[in-house]
Amino acid sequence: MDRFIVTIGRQFGSGGRSIGEKLAEKLGVKFYDKELISIAAKESGMAPEVFEGVDEKATNSLLYSLSMGMYSFGSGFPTMGDLPVNDKLYLLQHKIIKEIAERENCVIVGRCADYVLREDSNCVNIFFYANMEYRKEQSVKKHGIDEDRAEHIINKTDKSRANYYSFYSGQKWGMAENYDLCIDSSKISEENIVDLIAEYIKMR
Amino acid sequence: MDRFIVTIGRQFGSGGRSIGEKLAEKLGVKFYDKELISIAAKESGMAPEVFEGVDEKATNSLLYSLSMGMYSFGSGFPTMGDLPVNDKLYLLQHKIIKEIAERENCVIVGRCADYVLREDSNCVNIFFYANMEYRKEQSVKKHGIDEDRAEHIINKTDKSRANYYSFYSGQKWGMAENYDLCIDSSKISEENIVDLIAEYIKMR
Repeated sequence: MDRFIVTIGRQFGSGGRSIGEKLAEKLGVKFYDKELISIAAKESGMAPEVFEGVDEKATNSLLYSLSMGMYSFGSGFPTMGDLPVNDKLYLLQHKIIKEIAERENCVIVGRCADYVLREDSNCVNIFFYANMEYRKEQSVKKHGIDEDRAEHIINKTDKSRANYYSFYSGQKWGMAENYDLCIDSSKISEENIVDLIAEYIKMR
Repeated sequence: MDRFIVTIGRQFGSGGRSIGEKLAEKLGVKFYDKELISIAAKESGMAPEVFEGVDEKATNSLLYSLSMGMYSFGSGFPTMGDLPVNDKLYLLQHKIIKEIAERENCVIVGRCADYVLREDSNCVNIFFYANMEYRKEQSVKKHGIDEDRAEHIINKTDKSRANYYSFYSGQKWGMAENYDLCIDSSKISEENIVDLIAEYIKMR
C-alpha cells in the first residue's frame, strides 16, 4: 500500500477516536490522539498534566501578540518560553505531527492535523459527526458522562474544538470542503466505517 | 436490497450529476435531475422553458408573502396561481420528489431533496465538492464552458445553489452535518466513488 496519513476531525461523541483506533489496527499502523501530549511533554520537559488542561483549546494570545509586534523586539523571533501554554502545545504538536507524517503511515486524531499537513498529498482527511441523540448515548456509554449533563458537555466541547480549529487554521470546523470524506457515524456501524475507509485508501 | 433514495447535493463542476447517473445505472434505478422540470411542467401545464430559467434559484417572495400575511385573506391558503414561478416550481418539485420517493428506489440530484425527504429513513444524502482547479477543468470538459469564464460561472452557480438551499431548508449548504456522506470528488475516480457509495448502501 502507498504512503498514507489519515487525519480525523470529529464532533464529541461521534466515535471518531474509537473508529480511528480500529482503523489503525486494521491498517497495521500507529494511532495518535492523547499520545501527542505525552510526546510534547517529553520533548519540552514539561509535565503532561500542564498540557492536558489546554489540549485542543485556543487562546487568541499568539495572534494578538504577533499582531501587536510583541515578538518583534529582542531577537526578532518569539522564543517558546514567551508563549502561553496553549500556543506552546500547538506549536510542539505541529512539529511532532510533521515528523510523524514524514516517518510513518498512521492515524492522527484532532489537533488540526489536516491543516498542519495540508501540503502533504498522502493525507486522507476525514470528519465524523452524528445527530445529538446518538452522541448523547455514546457519551454516556463510552465516556461515562451523566445523561443529564451529556448535551451540555457535547456542546461545550464542540464549541471549544471549533474555536481551536478556526483559530489555528483560519477555516470553519465541520465544513465539508476541508476534508476528503465526511461521514455521519450514526448511520452505519463503526466496523463498516472502518472497512469503507480502508477501501477508500486503496482506491487512491 | 432494501428501499433507498439517494439524494445528491453538489458544487458546480464537482461531477455530482455524472456520478449520480453512473450510480443510478449501477443500482438499476431511475435518475432524476432536469427530469424534475419536465415532470413539473407536465403536471402544471406550463412550458418547461418557463421553469428552466428559475430552476434551483430562490426568491424570498414566498417567505415575504407569508410573513406579510398576504395569503391569509380569502380562502386562508395560498393558491398556486398567486405564487412567483420560482416558488411554484419549488412546491411542484417538492410534491413530485415525495411521490417518487414513496414509489421507487432512485437517485435525485439537487432541489433540496435531502431536506424535502428529511423524515424518510430510507434516504442516503450525499454532498460532492472539489477544489477549484478540478472544477474548472470539469466545467470546460463537461459543460463546454470557456476556460477564462469558468471560475466566475462556478462561483455564481454555487452562490445561487447555496441561496436556494438555505432559503428553502433554513440550513447551510455544504455543512457536513446535513448529509450522511460528503466526498471530495477530485481525490478518487467517479467509478470508484460509485463503487464506494454502492458499498455504503449495502452496509446500512
